[in-house]
Amino acid sequence: MVGFGIIGCADIAQKIVRTIAKTEGCSVVAVASRSIEKAEQFCASLDLPATSCTRYGSYADLLGDANVQVVYLPLPTALHLEWAPKVAAAGKHLLLEKPAGLTLQEVQEMVSACAANKVQFMDGVMWMHHVRAPKMREVVQSGELGKVTRVASSFHFCGGEEFDEDNIRVRKDCDPLGCIGDLGWYQIRAIIYLLQELPSSASAYVHKRSREGVPTSCSATLFFDSGKFATFDCGFDTNLRQELAVSGSAGTLACSDFVLCKSVDGSEFSVGSMVFQEGYGPKGHGLESTVEVRQGG
Amino acid sequence: MVGFGIIGCADIAQKIVRTIAKTEGCSVVAVASRSIEKAEQFCASLDLPATSCTRYGSYADLLGDANVQVVYLPLPTALHLEWAPKVAAAGKHLLLEKPAGLTLQEVQEMVSACAANKVQFMDGVMWMHHVRAPKMREVVQSGELGKVTRVASSFHFCGGEEFDEDNIRVRKDCDPLGCIGDLGWYQIRAIIYLLQELPSSASAYVHKRSREGVPTSCSATLFFDSGKFATFDCGFDTNLRQELAVSGSAGTLACSDFVLCKSVDGSEFSVGSMVFQEGYGPKGHGLESTVEVRQGG
Repeated sequence: MVGFGIIGCADIAQKIVRTIAKTEGCSVVAVASRSIEKAEQFCASLDLPATSCTRYGSYADLLGDANVQVVYLPLPTALHLEWAPKVAAAGKHLLLEKPAGLTLQEVQEMVSACAANKVQFMDGVMWMHHVRAPKMREVVQSGELGKVTRVASSFHFCGGEEFDEDNIRVRKDCDPLGCIGDLGWYQIRAIIYLLQELPSSASAYVHKRSREGVPTSCSATLFFDSGKFATFDCGFDTNLRQELAVSGSAGTLACSDFVLCKSVDGSEFSVGSMVFQEGYGPKGHGLESTVEVRQGG
Repeated sequence: MVGFGIIGCADIAQKIVRTIAKTEGCSVVAVASRSIEKAEQFCASLDLPATSCTRYGSYADLLGDANVQVVYLPLPTALHLEWAPKVAAAGKHLLLEKPAGLTLQEVQEMVSACAANKVQFMDGVMWMHHVRAPKMREVVQSGELGKVTRVASSFHFCGGEEFDEDNIRVRKDCDPLGCIGDLGWYQIRAIIYLLQELPSSASAYVHKRSREGVPTSCSATLFFDSGKFATFDCGFDTNLRQELAVSGSAGTLACSDFVLCKSVDGSEFSVGSMVFQEGYGPKGHGLESTVEVRQGG
């Protein structure tokens, strides 16, 4: 049994806790917030019994819990560099909410801390572990689309007035990358994952910023030495869309729910008029992905 | 009866001739090519009888034909500035294939020539005259999408090897704007038409050029003073796609055949899960649009 500890009671943590609960061999054994009351509330709302899940009013206390083998860290990005290395130093595997860090250097530092302590580093990009993702990559890499040169993606949701005012994703001290970290992160990952190449340069326009100067609407282009390019736009100001299109001389792979499947009953993507569908077996395989966690060194 | 003269036997002219033939009150009365043989061939392939349609081996000769009231000019863009004012000076209305000119100044000069000679100027952007276009604009302008801030468009086709070598659209002396003039022209028009605003600035990346240096793959962003923006990418190197999405806080209008309807039986666009459909009446209304040509001054 793999014991998960949750540090921080962000909304996204609720989804993860429910997923852990559904995953064979895993359970949430501890939850920490800055206040014990908040940890209690979080556990109560998710039916995590006090008998099997310890509540902590301090992040550090959770790190001392011997039952915790993996820490899921959904703290605001600006706090990752402080807490991720502490998780590693405590000998716990790390599941780090995305975006992993604010700079490449920050991420490298966290990855190094995990390596030095012989624990697993994983960032919270779920869709890549979905059964659909490698199928999509297979099609892109197969040559079926002809010569692939172009990826276009749009990923937005409409946050609304309250969100625009004080959601952590528009606050400089929390998630200063704004929509680029929150949405563009997925798009960049999808582009790199599907093309299997790293861009050589990038260009971005920030169209809108929050009161604190955090990007809330952006469009960007990634350039590849091979001549390929990818464009993506993301923002908190238009309705939910999650489009991804990979185009080649002979066809285009299109997926309009690449991050969050629109249906829990199945997922799909298309190439021209052909639709690829993935069902979910009786074991509930699919949305709940199985993650193997390396135990110890 | 409005008599059309065709100057230049480009592929696109075949489509226009067929459309004119189907349009009530219009007929093709003259065709000019640089050689009489080519004009003959063109007319034969389109069943234009010599009795009602005069063949000319010179563009200038056609301009002297009193039966011609409108000239359709599908010449390469680089030749527009030479021939469009000659058409106007001959007192003929002008239907000019797109892109109208290579610069704003060129276009202004041609429009002025038409105005001075009291003839109609019209560029060859057909989709705007389709019954669907004003419906789409109505939805965008209605507020139904919430606050509209973003347009994204992709328009490509795969030209193939032969095209890449010597199609007029990759030749500097013919269509030096390449894919920006051939495809981006539609996208820019759609963006301006639907948003009813002019961009204040623009930025573009040319990802690929033909041997002669003509853009064959491009991505661009248009910026509007209102805070809106539009991204589009176009090129001759990936398979046919003609996507257009206008996004607001409450919804997105999407159309995946905005230039060329995928079906001759109807056209559609969607807003969320709602699909707007336009049928074609028994009079063949729709794809064959009715154009009113102002006669004389």
